Amino acid sequence: MFLLAAALLLLPGFAQGGAVWPLPLTVATGEKVLHLDVERFHFKAIGYESELLSEAFKRYEELIFDTPSHLAEEALRGGAPANTSALAGALGRSRHTRIKRLRVYVGSYDQSLNLQTDESYTLSIASPTSTLQATTVFGALRGLETFSQLAGVEEGVDEEHGQQGLAKHKKHKHKRHEKKKHKKKKRRRRRSDSAFLVRVASIWDAPRFAHRGLLLDTGRHFLPVSALKDTLDAMAWAKLNVLHWHLVDDQSFPYASEALSRLAAAGAFSPAHTYSLDDVRGVVAYARARGIRIVPEFDTPGHTASWGRGYPDLLTDCYNESGARTGAGPLDPTRNGTYGALWRLLREAAGVFPDAYVHLGGDEVDLACWESNPAIKQWMAQHNMRNVRALLSMFEERVLSLAATAGRSYIVWQEVLDNGVRLRNDAVVHLRRVTGKGYRTLLSSPWYLNLGGFATPDWEAYYGVEPTAFGGSSEQQQLIIGGEACMWGEFVDATNLIQQTWPRANAVAERLWSGKDIRDVDAARPRYAEHRCRMLARGLGARPDTGPGFCPQD
Amino acid sequence: MFLLAAALLLLPGFAQGGAVWPLPLTVATGEKVLHLDVERFHFKAIGYESELLSEAFKRYEELIFDTPSHLAEEALRGGAPANTSALAGALGRSRHTRIKRLRVYVGSYDQSLNLQTDESYTLSIASPTSTLQATTVFGALRGLETFSQLAGVEEGVDEEHGQQGLAKHKKHKHKRHEKKKHKKKKRRRRRSDSAFLVRVASIWDAPRFAHRGLLLDTGRHFLPVSALKDTLDAMAWAKLNVLHWHLVDDQSFPYASEALSRLAAAGAFSPAHTYSLDDVRGVVAYARARGIRIVPEFDTPGHTASWGRGYPDLLTDCYNESGARTGAGPLDPTRNGTYGALWRLLREAAGVFPDAYVHLGGDEVDLACWESNPAIKQWMAQHNMRNVRALLSMFEERVLSLAATAGRSYIVWQEVLDNGVRLRNDAVVHLRRVTGKGYRTLLSSPWYLNLGGFATPDWEAYYGVEPTAFGGSSEQQQLIIGGEACMWGEFVDATNLIQQTWPRANAVAERLWSGKDIRDVDAARPRYAEHRCRMLARGLGARPDTGPGFCPQD
Repeated sequence: MFLLAAALLLLPGFAQGGAVWPLPLTVATGEKVLHLDVERFHFKAIGYESELLSEAFKRYEELIFDTPSHLAEEALRGGAPANTSALAGALGRSRHTRIKRLRVYVGSYDQSLNLQTDESYTLSIASPTSTLQATTVFGALRGLETFSQLAGVEEGVDEEHGQQGLAKHKKHKHKRHEKKKHKKKKRRRRRSDSAFLVRVASIWDAPRFAHRGLLLDTGRHFLPVSALKDTLDAMAWAKLNVLHWHLVDDQSFPYASEALSRLAAAGAFSPAHTYSLDDVRGVVAYARARGIRIVPEFDTPGHTASWGRGYPDLLTDCYNESGARTGAGPLDPTRNGTYGALWRLLREAAGVFPDAYVHLGGDEVDLACWESNPAIKQWMAQHNMRNVRALLSMFEERVLSLAATAGRSYIVWQEVLDNGVRLRNDAVVHLRRVTGKGYRTLLSSPWYLNLGGFATPDWEAYYGVEPTAFGGSSEQQQLIIGGEACMWGEFVDATNLIQQTWPRANAVAERLWSGKDIRDVDAARPRYAEHRCRMLARGLGARPDTGPGFCPQD
Repeated sequence: MFLLAAALLLLPGFAQGGAVWPLPLTVATGEKVLHLDVERFHFKAIGYESELLSEAFKRYEELIFDTPSHLAEEALRGGAPANTSALAGALGRSRHTRIKRLRVYVGSYDQSLNLQTDESYTLSIASPTSTLQATTVFGALRGLETFSQLAGVEEGVDEEHGQQGLAKHKKHKHKRHEKKKHKKKKRRRRRSDSAFLVRVASIWDAPRFAHRGLLLDTGRHFLPVSALKDTLDAMAWAKLNVLHWHLVDDQSFPYASEALSRLAAAGAFSPAHTYSLDDVRGVVAYARARGIRIVPEFDTPGHTASWGRGYPDLLTDCYNESGARTGAGPLDPTRNGTYGALWRLLREAAGVFPDAYVHLGGDEVDLACWESNPAIKQWMAQHNMRNVRALLSMFEERVLSLAATAGRSYIVWQEVLDNGVRLRNDAVVHLRRVTGKGYRTLLSSPWYLNLGGFATPDWEAYYGVEPTAFGGSSEQQQLIIGGEACMWGEFVDATNLIQQTWPRANAVAERLWSGKDIRDVDAARPRYAEHRCRMLARGLGARPDTGPGFCPQD
């Protein structure tokens, strides 16, 4: 009865829809199509119950029943309009059974979200009983996402809300975070005029890598909380599980620390361009509800010009060859006040960001500035420090030790390692080039989304990357715990964040979730295009990335 | 009293604002700042009146009084928050006079909009009398745009609607074409809590080139009418005056011709992805109200695959070396039916598009397909035609003659000329590489916006182009009537059209409007950034293009 399929096939009766991104580890789909009973369908927790799960139920009911039908642009590529009569014919021949619920079993009450969290799940869609089983609630969230992607709107019965649905979608799109009160009414209307299908399927799924991240940069341009939440939604749809929040940089300090209040008061672009601690807590909670960790980055000792606007003493004065001051450089590693400030910042951050990890940067440090400063040179002589690399080592070791004291493990950019700094065993090294020296590593270098081109399907290159093919022994390869797509913010703000990040980050998401052998870009393209259309249906304006075509949500 | 300025200076008292893009031909600005009397200010037509003008008055009243303050991201680059106290101090020292109206004189009742339209204007902002004078109403539109850019909101008195204004702006942004009923109320509220300033200035302005265009491509992806209207707004703000509408292409035929109804019925992506003739007329009227011509393009004989879905006989069958049919190629130039269909299409289009010009494409024709077709070879032999280039010449000459019969001059891509086709004297050649052979020419090759990169400020390269430096004698250089920025649609649809087109098209706009000596990219950058913030204030999400920074409308 079941057919083991490497890629999910398009199913007759669907206005497309039903292909899953990222591709599950093993999928068996049957030929049968089941109707979701729109009047009565619900998710049903068996045994285990929690707010995380019940809120996810609500979210996925909305995604399934309140979004326009899924229709892949790829399928209609090259221009032929959909041959709906053939689909309708196929539909007529299949036997429908109504399913009224999906039973959800969660094995453990452990709700900790970290590198070790078990995200696996099994999903069986069959008549009369459909079940989702997972060890943790976060595995259940992944399974619900898969279920929502397997569901679609029946072709033909959906005519009434075609254009109307589109208008509704647009409203939905721009009011994603102020829409709650209309939901009930919409659901009822849809129920009466549409039929929802779901494939018969049996899936066992688990991620290949534990850390599947996206870096956003709020130091170069401010991103409003709504843009961060939109991004978290899109990440959850692609089963990405870490938002690496590059909070601050030379250009601005939007993180409104209360412990060091002048950092944002003087370092943000304006008072409107800041995140209060409550804003941050809200983003963290929104992410956790979607099984996404937030790893904050406070990049030091470089990339800190904005720190100096409120606290000039934190920075090193740089001098030119004739001894004239030329400006401010990295944090001053020789003053105790620097470490006092960092401690207050990190201790506070540990109360706001619950994740076990904090990213401490460590890249692109202007060592020449330290070298040019007479007071620093004097300090080094007093402390028998031969060169500024040793000074950097000392700084990093002190900062990393502060993080540890605040109860946090840390991630650092590769330069820290290159500069000979000793790291703790639980450190993670964020690679720009090659694998590290016995530490667990994250890969980002091939996935700098911000470097892409307007007219280039660069998602294909991202997709083709094999994380373990970046050199190193098999032991070193096993130290790769995942990777991150990076969207640096020099040319990105709320106007173009979604369009420039998506759908391209989806390519990285499948690379990090799906099996190593899933790498045929031609086979992936229709699913990739369909998932982009799905994002539009769900209200996010991901750009067209696979050449000419359309989605019904255009 | 007046200071002749090559670039407009930022004025004390303004929350920035007041720099004009594109830069006028001659500008003299004074140090004095005038208050717009928010209760009573209005535009006053003296003598000449028309609907075109009175509608423009309404539009510009809204733009001036209903948009958040202008604040250049560039000025605050590098991070220091605005030093508003210094501005306020400077303001305190300047003497304010309230102005209650701008008198608008238009010299001629001729409202024809074409290559010869006089777009010059003079604008004098002074106390007690401010005047705008222009030969044509379209010149007056350009002057109103300049006036609106010179105006700004006074720093400090605008606090009350800071965040509120932003929220309002967002709504405004996403409902640009369904917002009318809220206007009155908003204006009144603003009037009571803000002060609007305008610089004392004396400007004489006229464009350097008569044809300042933007190409949009609705063949590769459909663009909804609202996206076209948004684009037309942005064009008017930058004084661009031609929308080159690349309507149809291989991938789809969204133009719902009634004369040849199967073109769109079978050739569009879907029935929802079409423009009715009324849709088109609405876009044309919207453009004309902003002084923008619409030049439609029906690309022939290549790029016509979508035509063949409804009318297969129009296309040439292509064959491989063993004589097997391989697919459909360009229009069949040997069948009279081809010309009959083109005539019906062009005659109908002449009734929908009032512009004197139609663009007939002529690029990238697959001559090898014609050569492979036995029937075409036989026809060529019968007509003593030596090669397929001669066949192409014949086709082009017949099509161009049909356009002439329909009362239209034509523009063609350069390949047509390269293929030796004789053109009429009023033809315009759309250059991809070098100047032509005695015909008037348009330049596009350096301005393919769609080829840009996400993280590249490629507007600087666009800005640096000198149109007359593309070879040719001075006579040939004088034949350059302008140029077009091109946004080809392979990777662009409604999700990213605005962000990928703007603000970069503004660089081309200034190149084509302002004097030849205005080419210092560093001097242009703050104005360029300010105009981008102005676009945000007016509700269009142009992307950040000058590196890190912010607008208050972020």
